[in-house]
Amino acid sequence: MSEITRIETGSRMSQAVIHNGIVYLAGQVGAPGASFSEQTKAVLAAVDRLLAEAGTDKTRLLTAQIWLSDIGAGFADMNAVWDGWVAKGHAPARWTGEAKLATPDYKVEIIVTAALP
Amino acid sequence: MSEITRIETGSRMSQAVIHNGIVYLAGQVGAPGASFSEQTKAVLAAVDRLLAEAGTDKTRLLTAQIWLSDIGAGFADMNAVWDGWVAKGHAPARWTGEAKLATPDYKVEIIVTAALP
Amino acid sequence: MSEITRIETGSRMSQAVIHNGIVYLAGQVGAPGASFSEQTKAVLAAVDRLLAEAGTDKTRLLTAQIWLSDIGAGFADMNAVWDGWVAKGHAPARWTGEAKLATPDYKVEIIVTAALP
Repeated sequence: MSEITRIETGSRMSQAVIHNGIVYLAGQVGAPGASFSEQTKAVLAAVDRLLAEAGTDKTRLLTAQIWLSDIGAGFADMNAVWDGWVAKGHAPARWTGEAKLATPDYKVEIIVTAALP
Repeated sequence: MSEITRIETGSRMSQAVIHNGIVYLAGQVGAPGASFSEQTKAVLAAVDRLLAEAGTDKTRLLTAQIWLSDIGAGFADMNAVWDGWVAKGHAPARWTGEAKLATPDYKVEIIVTAALP
Repeated sequence: MSEITRIETGSRMSQAVIHNGIVYLAGQVGAPGASFSEQTKAVLAAVDRLLAEAGTDKTRLLTAQIWLSDIGAGFADMNAVWDGWVAKGHAPARWTGEAKLATPDYKVEIIVTAALP
């Protein structure tokens, strides 16, 4: 049976799941009510932390999906933080859209997958 | 050539696609017009059925994305059903947002991936 | 270390990422302001082109997610183009929802994964 490793597992979700050389992260969010920039920074810090826990890092990202509560208001600010965070030459396949998130105080949610080394 | 198996295939989509030890399910929906709770139950029954057809089950979920037509109105009800359904210790990486679905009568759509045994 | 190949890579995203026999495409969009039909045709042409660059084609699609800026206005038109494009017997697992995209002129965004031969 192929092995599945779950990180920070609860009754509702795991923050990360590893299978067959890929880690799948749950949607990461920042501090409720903070700005688009601040929430993006917090989200990417959480992504870095979970990738490290899984034994990999942002140079091995495969995909990233980004949801903003208001794409008109937040797209530029999110991208400014995002572009500074991405490892040069290692950008993932990405898509971005607008969606209301779990509570109105969440402005940014990012979901990534990455390959293990 | 790596093998691809398609389950309940039509001209628009397959309800499940198996490749390299992972099954990818199409978005599952419940009975149009039913409550958030009822639609969530129907969706998860459809997920169970398709996972069984693929030869696996909910203990091997990797990811789940959940879309609600009204996240303010449906989040708590969906989660109550979801939390009761998840196999203890086997929760997937999850993310949830609000999106209008194919018709206004659809309130819940869930898309999962799972590992085969 | 498992190999990752990135296609059309920039500082923000790669248009496609290949890892372990699967290609992950970034969200593809069409010409801003064009109709739902025209944008869908352009998106699928971009998908065909990127799959070819990755060494595969639409007969090996695994998943497709489709976002429309107005699902009531665009679902039928998008599906008419989509259904004609899908390779008979090779339809992916699919899900579709409504989301505002990067700018209001984008009406259709499609994100696919496919297996390499």
